[in-house]
Amino acid sequence: MNERELIAQLVPQLPLNDRVIAGAGDDCAVIDLGLAADWVLFKIDATLEGVHFARDAEPRAVGHKALGRCLSDVAAMAGKPICALIALGLPAQFDPARVREIYAGINTLARRYQVAVAGGETSLSPDRLTLTVSLLGTVPQNHCVRRSGARPGDGLWVTGELGGSILGKHLAFEPRIQQAAWLRARFDLHAMIDLSDGLSTDARHLAQASEVGAELTAESIPISAAAWRRADDNASAALRAALNDGEDFELLFALPDSEHMALQAAWPKAFPDLKLTAIGTCTATRGLRLRQGNTLLELHEHGYDHFA
Amino acid sequence: MNERELIAQLVPQLPLNDRVIAGAGDDCAVIDLGLAADWVLFKIDATLEGVHFARDAEPRAVGHKALGRCLSDVAAMAGKPICALIALGLPAQFDPARVREIYAGINTLARRYQVAVAGGETSLSPDRLTLTVSLLGTVPQNHCVRRSGARPGDGLWVTGELGGSILGKHLAFEPRIQQAAWLRARFDLHAMIDLSDGLSTDARHLAQASEVGAELTAESIPISAAAWRRADDNASAALRAALNDGEDFELLFALPDSEHMALQAAWPKAFPDLKLTAIGTCTATRGLRLRQGNTLLELHEHGYDHFA
Repeated sequence: MNERELIAQLVPQLPLNDRVIAGAGDDCAVIDLGLAADWVLFKIDATLEGVHFARDAEPRAVGHKALGRCLSDVAAMAGKPICALIALGLPAQFDPARVREIYAGINTLARRYQVAVAGGETSLSPDRLTLTVSLLGTVPQNHCVRRSGARPGDGLWVTGELGGSILGKHLAFEPRIQQAAWLRARFDLHAMIDLSDGLSTDARHLAQASEVGAELTAESIPISAAAWRRADDNASAALRAALNDGEDFELLFALPDSEHMALQAAWPKAFPDLKLTAIGTCTATRGLRLRQGNTLLELHEHGYDHFA
Repeated sequence: MNERELIAQLVPQLPLNDRVIAGAGDDCAVIDLGLAADWVLFKIDATLEGVHFARDAEPRAVGHKALGRCLSDVAAMAGKPICALIALGLPAQFDPARVREIYAGINTLARRYQVAVAGGETSLSPDRLTLTVSLLGTVPQNHCVRRSGARPGDGLWVTGELGGSILGKHLAFEPRIQQAAWLRARFDLHAMIDLSDGLSTDARHLAQASEVGAELTAESIPISAAAWRRADDNASAALRAALNDGEDFELLFALPDSEHMALQAAWPKAFPDLKLTAIGTCTATRGLRLRQGNTLLELHEHGYDHFA
């Protein structure tokens, strides 16, 4: 049994209550705590030495990634992050200077988005340093963007460039908090997800949650320089990297076709340094397909499964 | 440098914002999300195989402990728990039946207190199974009980019996959610903490946060049967266990002397099966002392320091 099969067994058993608007299966849990206009976004993510970062990774970047992963999930629901807690797992022999630098990375990113770090806890973690971050945010109830709102005919858009994150971006990505807030305020976002498992997997997640299919256009997928580098400039290997590599931490979203032109015109003025690309369309036919020239390929499950 | 010295360096650097009522240093972080009458309680706690439970521990009890530790912290602030997330770390080779039993333990405890488990995330944890739980709760703003409100002359009370938790209670304790809510509704709780590091350490935490001292009466400290068993019926060893053993997960609280008689009368009717004991007094003189017959001993730092 792999991780996904196990989760599929566990999730239906989890107890819920009338405060839960969205539980397992979206980027954040969505909770109604009784605020007049907002829902609360609630997220947890673990970042482990030897799994999510190498032992010799730059400590500030490790801290940046640990908090950034949660921020990216709040961005995916167009929310505002407010407060984080950190569970720090430390080996018996630890280097205090390294831990201070990790926290400097956390704190710098937190300050950039006015996020408080309201403490947490420390425990012994004999084998490796671990950072588990929990994050609280809010989102207006009428503007909470979930994975499940895409409709046939919607355009699919992606920020930034994809693939090859392992060469460095996975430790240095910028969570798309600002972009998501800007989009939410101006456009009718139908569905959104952050790319953590790879475009092909996360596009499938969004499509499945929305009960639609999707067709991506190979020529339009923005391939990063790192993906080209990893692929030794081989075009099909670079495309595969952009489709399947994890940890891009970019946004994938679905927008009605009627807003296509307006978004294309407004984006470069708001974010001149960040690419935005229309990469495909939602379809009534389920499944995920890739159009490459005259051929249409069925895309099967790919991406990142820790227990594959 | 040990864990506490490191934390003392890290905490003053953490960024805060105007939503944070209480950050690091209380049982939960206290956040103002804009609710009319309530504050939000926010907690994270990691539970690791080989650190917080043995590899052969009963799986349901492991799940119970992982969630129960967070519930105990919400109880310590007299709050109502609402929603949990779980970060599950799984070795590459895991036993699905064991994980299902762990979740059965989590879910049973969650249902008992109407707590939702709104998902979380799973990641590879190569060496050991880990469960990090984050919990959201609420507490009325005018009834949030912190560590810092004790005053000289207040009585110090403790629920249950102390010491020897390692013989079993550390996996089977009941978080004192109901008792804390009952106390809050009827009495003027000045300060409260849950006993996770051991009475001597946690009494010191409460006293230091309140800028008072405390005097405990040795004869009144409720020593558990497990503490006696561990001490081979040696009275001073059993007392030391009750003072210094960790993971009792009972409540220690400070109450004005004027409410002493009323509490002593009302408690046994409300909770006939749970002991409540007045164990000492808060004092203007700082420090922690133990009165044993005619002698007064200074208690120095004890309890549980993972990195001592």
